[in-house]
Amino acid sequence: MSVELVVNKVGRRVPTVVNNREQAPFLGVGAYEPDGRKQAPPIRSCRDYPASGDKRVTDLKAALKKCGIADGMTISTHHHLRNGDAVALLALRAAAELGVKDLMWFPSASFPCHEPVIELMDQGVVHHIEGSMNGPLGEYCSRGKMRGMGVLRSHGGRWQAIQDGEVHIDIAVIAAPSADPFGNADGSHGPSACGSLGFALADSIYADHVIVVTDNLVPFPCIPWQIQGNNVDYVVEVDSIGDPAKIVSGTTEITKSPDRLLIAEYVARFLKEAGIMRDGFSFQAGAGGIALAFVEFLKKLMKEAGVKARFVRGGSTKYLVDLLKEGLTDYILDGQTFDLAGVESIARDPRHVATSPFTSYNYHGKGNFATLVDAVVLGATEVDVDFNANVNTHSDGILLHGIGGWQNCLFAGCTILALPSFRDRIPVLVDQVTTMTGPGELIDVVVSERGIAINPRRTDLLDRLKGSKLPIRPIQEIKEEVERITGGPPAKASLTDRPVAVIKWVDGTVLDTVWQLQE
Amino acid sequence: MSVELVVNKVGRRVPTVVNNREQAPFLGVGAYEPDGRKQAPPIRSCRDYPASGDKRVTDLKAALKKCGIADGMTISTHHHLRNGDAVALLALRAAAELGVKDLMWFPSASFPCHEPVIELMDQGVVHHIEGSMNGPLGEYCSRGKMRGMGVLRSHGGRWQAIQDGEVHIDIAVIAAPSADPFGNADGSHGPSACGSLGFALADSIYADHVIVVTDNLVPFPCIPWQIQGNNVDYVVEVDSIGDPAKIVSGTTEITKSPDRLLIAEYVARFLKEAGIMRDGFSFQAGAGGIALAFVEFLKKLMKEAGVKARFVRGGSTKYLVDLLKEGLTDYILDGQTFDLAGVESIARDPRHVATSPFTSYNYHGKGNFATLVDAVVLGATEVDVDFNANVNTHSDGILLHGIGGWQNCLFAGCTILALPSFRDRIPVLVDQVTTMTGPGELIDVVVSERGIAINPRRTDLLDRLKGSKLPIRPIQEIKEEVERITGGPPAKASLTDRPVAVIKWVDGTVLDTVWQLQE
Repeated sequence: MSVELVVNKVGRRVPTVVNNREQAPFLGVGAYEPDGRKQAPPIRSCRDYPASGDKRVTDLKAALKKCGIADGMTISTHHHLRNGDAVALLALRAAAELGVKDLMWFPSASFPCHEPVIELMDQGVVHHIEGSMNGPLGEYCSRGKMRGMGVLRSHGGRWQAIQDGEVHIDIAVIAAPSADPFGNADGSHGPSACGSLGFALADSIYADHVIVVTDNLVPFPCIPWQIQGNNVDYVVEVDSIGDPAKIVSGTTEITKSPDRLLIAEYVARFLKEAGIMRDGFSFQAGAGGIALAFVEFLKKLMKEAGVKARFVRGGSTKYLVDLLKEGLTDYILDGQTFDLAGVESIARDPRHVATSPFTSYNYHGKGNFATLVDAVVLGATEVDVDFNANVNTHSDGILLHGIGGWQNCLFAGCTILALPSFRDRIPVLVDQVTTMTGPGELIDVVVSERGIAINPRRTDLLDRLKGSKLPIRPIQEIKEEVERITGGPPAKASLTDRPVAVIKWVDGTVLDTVWQLQE
Repeated sequence: MSVELVVNKVGRRVPTVVNNREQAPFLGVGAYEPDGRKQAPPIRSCRDYPASGDKRVTDLKAALKKCGIADGMTISTHHHLRNGDAVALLALRAAAELGVKDLMWFPSASFPCHEPVIELMDQGVVHHIEGSMNGPLGEYCSRGKMRGMGVLRSHGGRWQAIQDGEVHIDIAVIAAPSADPFGNADGSHGPSACGSLGFALADSIYADHVIVVTDNLVPFPCIPWQIQGNNVDYVVEVDSIGDPAKIVSGTTEITKSPDRLLIAEYVARFLKEAGIMRDGFSFQAGAGGIALAFVEFLKKLMKEAGVKARFVRGGSTKYLVDLLKEGLTDYILDGQTFDLAGVESIARDPRHVATSPFTSYNYHGKGNFATLVDAVVLGATEVDVDFNANVNTHSDGILLHGIGGWQNCLFAGCTILALPSFRDRIPVLVDQVTTMTGPGELIDVVVSERGIAINPRRTDLLDRLKGSKLPIRPIQEIKEEVERITGGPPAKASLTDRPVAVIKWVDGTVLDTVWQLQE
């Protein structure tokens, strides 16, 4: 199979056709102008649904048959249950038992628990995956074993692709910790509670057919409903949608590494000294060890200064919930819920609000929340001297991580990458990233244990930090120091000329390519 | 203008073309099979919206101009502010000042306060209205003065028409008791609080352009948001969106008429004796005097029997809120909020849940809530011996009332019309309704002060009520008794052969025609 390639605005070679669909190359931030109209799902009628509202069918196989499952269809599932999810495999295996072939699996993200999908790909049941491919699935793709091309999208990009009709979902299978027989569903209650179900919302609206799978059927109405039964065709009861211990970790842990604690402290102090930490401000930080430590450092500074946030964005954890409880923020706007404290809070506190990729991240909407956040603290696997960053591959070029909300968050007022300058003696600061997940023009600050590099475009930040005791240094200088320690730049990845996956930008254009490994 | 007419399934002559759009005649309940796909709004991009999220513009005129307002466009507004609404006139007059002509005004309902739209129709600014036309507007239409044809839809039918692309909204103007600069909006808080904003939801999703108008701007995020800012183009601040005293009545009043109290008591006893009032049941009743009295009677019977409802449907009032507070229902599922007690409750109690015409009433969805309600108590202006009912005109044929959720509610398990057998010495029970708003096959029971008529189709109800002390009587017999009292059937309406409005059924087909008055 030969693939035509073009060089896009950031100098990356990208395919013009992916999985038989024409692609636009990345044109630069904000340069691509969409036209046309949104995806229009079929008009249904109450005449074809039970007047009792009871949409239950015996099992997933029966539901898939009623949805008219056929070869080549696209089936979507969601990652609210994280590494505890049982439903994606239940659905794909039910399809396999029905003898269906060549499915496109369209998860909002995949986890190590989904490794058995490799077997289904080998058997021909699944043709390819569009969605994050972590660990073994990423490696399978990197080694060129997948029949179609992988397509990696951000959370917002997934909404955009569904909404714009780039991905047509034939059947959405939504795992629901609570649901009623009508299909109203919620994630905050029940033995498999996971918090928000926002990642399934687009699927519920735009898919041709929607199946809700639950292990906690409640009488109508399931309150609150984040998925509306009016979009749901069938409800399937199962014994268990997943392993609660893996759905949410009991607690999330702050890093104990002195280097990483230092990075977290630098970030907090940076926000203060840059004047970002002020009354009514907002921030977002993830659930990684550095991010959690940053929240604790910032909290201390906020208390000292008597400063209160208007909102913080989750992924929510105990640390954000504590801010809410202590009155240090008015609201948590939560995209996903990472620990038990988060799940409990979103279930009970009306100030802890579930958001969706539509409200938060979709670039093809009338604005989104990500641009309203004053500062975001993110990680990366690599950052280069032009502030371009990579979250998908390491320097060996193997696809190992999804994008998540990372790209979407780059539109915050101040985007900070907080990362160690090397990992396992391999530099994280490099001349050029192996894979570009985010263009440097959107990345404002890189904070490592060896210093803080401010993007030269942000003269405002450079000005505000003048005279600071924080180790503000040119990125090139930090990079060179790291190379002296590690013995030079990382070895170039050994790759073929065959694209195995693409990295989509938030507007649906192709930002970069993942190449098959040279073996 | 000559109009082609056909006779539909219930024997009514209906036009085949309305306002230049082809129409399907009513084919019978559940007979019409929709095809095609839903209305697809244009794809937008964050690049074209302010990164700050601040979408405010100086005034409505500026906002309408930015939306590209032009002759012949459709502008929608909503009736959450009821007879206190100032925003519809602000918007239409701003359009008039911009010199725009021939608009279609598409309100979710109109009220007496909108009488000045007559002037705008006389001036050519508004071409015609599709939406309920109460009082003076209805009379204007009935006298043939409107240039286009009136189209009356139920609340669910309005959602269906927008969703199915029958009505394309160019600009939606949404009055919001609270909103943030991004356009997130809520109805439960602020000086002009009105409760749910559900009637504006379809417009916010499907209109090409959306303007939020508020007199209570709050910092982002406006929580809760019922209208999502991600669907909103512009936000306009005004001094006042309406007259709070007329937006919600302070209290809603139970009837004092002995006849009407008797009707209410009959209805409550009927529900009990028919076995509908049982643990976990549900009902809906409006805010009229009889309906409120019915709730009080039913409450007494529920308490006596130790029975609790799973949910009650609003229009919410103090009487429903009391049921919730006293633990006699798990939930209120609320479409609109009629009094201060209702507004307060929906703002504070998570068991008092805002619904929308999508969840509750849209017939072109995958089911709706209306079919899940065990019993609904409604009114009517006329009912005939075949149980067909009219809520739009009186026997003089003048268009005076909208449909509201009335048609949608007919799909409940047991539909009860509770009404006096005559009004102002004019019989309500007739041989044939002047206008058919609901086909008799969906109307199960007619309760008047002179007896209770059960639709012969409902042999199950007739069986269950055998031996009851309630005055169960044939409808024909009650009608004849009324005619003896009033001196005969009402005079036939004096009408021409020119259609001035149509009554849509919930599936978008044409159920009946309103004819110009003979003058």
